[in-house]
Amino acid sequence: MALLDYDPYARDCPSRQLLDRIGDRWTVLVVGLLEDGPLRFSELSRRVDGISQKMLTQTLRALEADGLVLRTAFPEIPPRVEYELTALGRSLLDPLHVLVAWATENMGEVQAARDRATAA
Amino acid sequence: MALLDYDPYARDCPSRQLLDRIGDRWTVLVVGLLEDGPLRFSELSRRVDGISQKMLTQTLRALEADGLVLRTAFPEIPPRVEYELTALGRSLLDPLHVLVAWATENMGEVQAARDRATAA
Repeated sequence: MALLDYDPYARDCPSRQLLDRIGDRWTVLVVGLLEDGPLRFSELSRRVDGISQKMLTQTLRALEADGLVLRTAFPEIPPRVEYELTALGRSLLDPLHVLVAWATENMGEVQAARDRATAA
Repeated sequence: MALLDYDPYARDCPSRQLLDRIGDRWTVLVVGLLEDGPLRFSELSRRVDGISQKMLTQTLRALEADGLVLRTAFPEIPPRVEYELTALGRSLLDPLHVLVAWATENMGEVQAARDRATAA
């Protein structure tokens, strides 16, 4: 699939909507947590501070529909459901690492710019 | 500034909000366009298919407040205003390229997953 097949600058290109999805705050954080292996809903909920149950459910469903996360229900009592990255999902780890690293490395400089903008 | 100073997994860490900002669809597209040099509002508006004037204004103001974009008003008649990336803004280009490349390279595979999810 050549790069030129998709153009996020075009209004109706599906890559624009995919960009929304992968740039989403919750997607970035959930995919990052799944890097080290499968997790249960409750573990994800606990480790992404402040995410609502509804938002975590939506995020996981979207990731599953996009083929980035695999949901496995184990027939146990009580039932156990785990989420893990697919190969496609793992391929997204590097791009997201780069993004998170930029945000954390440059937060101080951005904050200084914000302070100047507020003071101006 | 060490990476550990900021943690986007913590609810109140400003890096989480910065992650929202840089992952935003319009930010990604506008910053990408400014890579080759300064542009006027009207040029940005035309090249980001489907962005509203209001959304472009908001996106540019946020980028300016965060120190990523410099706005220069030339005292001409008619007035000319140009937007360009700062050094900090340019440092964001690589992370965003990686993200856009992932989205365009993997759009086919994601679309196939979506089709399977819909058919299921």
